[in-house]
Amino acid sequence: MADHQSSPSGEDSLIARYFKRIATDPGAFNLDDDAAALKALGDDIVVTTDAIVEGVHYLPNDPPDTVARKALRVNLSDLAAKGAAPAGFVLTLALRTVDDSWLKPFAQALGEEAVLFNCPLLGGDTVSTPGPLMISITAFGRVSTGKMVHRSGAKPGDRVVVTGTIGDAALGLDILKGGAAVAALAGDAAREMLIGRYRLPQPRTALADAVRGHAHAAMDVSDGLAGDLAKLCAASGVSAAIDAASIPLSPAVAELVARGTVGLATLLSAGDDYEILCAVPEDRFEAFAQAARQANVAVTSIGTVIAGTAIPSFLDLQGRDLALTRRSFSHF
Amino acid sequence: MADHQSSPSGEDSLIARYFKRIATDPGAFNLDDDAAALKALGDDIVVTTDAIVEGVHYLPNDPPDTVARKALRVNLSDLAAKGAAPAGFVLTLALRTVDDSWLKPFAQALGEEAVLFNCPLLGGDTVSTPGPLMISITAFGRVSTGKMVHRSGAKPGDRVVVTGTIGDAALGLDILKGGAAVAALAGDAAREMLIGRYRLPQPRTALADAVRGHAHAAMDVSDGLAGDLAKLCAASGVSAAIDAASIPLSPAVAELVARGTVGLATLLSAGDDYEILCAVPEDRFEAFAQAARQANVAVTSIGTVIAGTAIPSFLDLQGRDLALTRRSFSHF
Repeated sequence: MADHQSSPSGEDSLIARYFKRIATDPGAFNLDDDAAALKALGDDIVVTTDAIVEGVHYLPNDPPDTVARKALRVNLSDLAAKGAAPAGFVLTLALRTVDDSWLKPFAQALGEEAVLFNCPLLGGDTVSTPGPLMISITAFGRVSTGKMVHRSGAKPGDRVVVTGTIGDAALGLDILKGGAAVAALAGDAAREMLIGRYRLPQPRTALADAVRGHAHAAMDVSDGLAGDLAKLCAASGVSAAIDAASIPLSPAVAELVARGTVGLATLLSAGDDYEILCAVPEDRFEAFAQAARQANVAVTSIGTVIAGTAIPSFLDLQGRDLALTRRSFSHF
Repeated sequence: MADHQSSPSGEDSLIARYFKRIATDPGAFNLDDDAAALKALGDDIVVTTDAIVEGVHYLPNDPPDTVARKALRVNLSDLAAKGAAPAGFVLTLALRTVDDSWLKPFAQALGEEAVLFNCPLLGGDTVSTPGPLMISITAFGRVSTGKMVHRSGAKPGDRVVVTGTIGDAALGLDILKGGAAVAALAGDAAREMLIGRYRLPQPRTALADAVRGHAHAAMDVSDGLAGDLAKLCAASGVSAAIDAASIPLSPAVAELVARGTVGLATLLSAGDDYEILCAVPEDRFEAFAQAARQANVAVTSIGTVIAGTAIPSFLDLQGRDLALTRRSFSHF
């Protein structure tokens, strides 16, 4: 993305028009160089990368501003789950054409997000593609040396905790695709909420300190709670028993589940929640919950880490294991 | 890319089969986590990102091992030009399908490159796309605090220096596309050399210390020497006078130019050289050249930085400015 106006190729012009103004961090060198710099501050740099593809991760008619926000936020969600404070990001844009009516709101929203989450644009690359638009972001966070929170580390007896609510985004996507759930919904407000949860994840950046301070293990829930919990347990060499009734649902989703419009099992294997899943030792739970309240992030204890290597069980009120045939979203 | 075998989705399986074995750095956490970590060592982290798209940056029938090597090397070239030592990279792969016959040699070559350049795979993301294959790499380098070499900083009187030879890769691409240059070439060896220069850039990693120690400004030549020099000069607020006859050409290219098969001006605006262009003060040139000899990297002084803001001039033996109508490659 580094380039200079004095030789105004199409790429230079695109960068000058849209991205220089939002690359205000000194380490971005005004996008006039070939690389960015993250200053040495004695922290480890946590690195995460997530790409979104038109038609795969977002819908072609999704508004460009929400596409920009989602592209960054899915990465911020990872940083928060690792206990890291945002430090910046680089952007790779693969474009079919230079569509100003798309790029202008995209870049403006990205700039707003960078300010909102204190995560500046540091650099990037723009390339042409004959295929779908693709946005790849690599984001950086800072964490004290050795303090990144891992998937591994959960111990038997830890509480399994999740932020926010589960399943909203999956139903938002279902609505956008014209799915049957729409008809069952009572009002516009619920519909808008669910679509908003699909288009605009809420990275739990405010909870990063609490996760780092109290959790044995953590990850973000992006490919379905059931599958992601299985991954956390496997990385930690443990299992878990989840009380399915305690899984936090928004009122709209709870109603759909109660009506039988959608099964809880479906929601547990659906993607795009972007909540934090973590294992918190019992004796730290109160302090964690207190920190979460101060951060204004809802957290819910949904079960317990147990010994063993069995796939985590999701038990209904009668103590029966939900039959989860598909546990996560996979691209292939 | 972080995932675990115990819930073997297609993506997990892909990662387990091909990429875990090459992610040997402790900061990669065996690709079992959501993020990687670059340890705090008191250095600034230099960040660069470059994406390559099938059919745009490489040809669909290019061998997968050279595609892997090129994808990493174009980033290593940037790090070297910034005076940074490689520290690792993350990979985003957008794939239409999981084609084992392509992925296996791709991953193996990437692993070999990581070892060769001491630049470990730290993490990444794999996504599906209906479009062309795309490989996006974000690479990290280490440099002492504040010591990254910039495009800006060149001063009147500095020598303009370039590594290696210019134009080979452009003619290699021309040959692969069945261009007229082929017929004019004497032998298979020259053809192979030119194609090799297109498919397999030689990042001047060994020269990074010398660049950092001696150059006022530097960048890698990826979009054409003429355009890239114009960018370096613009960023530095200077101009340059280049002696076109001194621009280093391989014997094969020199012969093609001498025969009139290809014009020097064309080569100066063609991409894919991946050489280092730098401005070295006169009183440091001998030390720089000595360091380059020790690093076994050919360097050639091709002209002088001069005051002013004119686009750099490329002068022939008669002192006439070459007419450069197109100075760089641009995607748009």
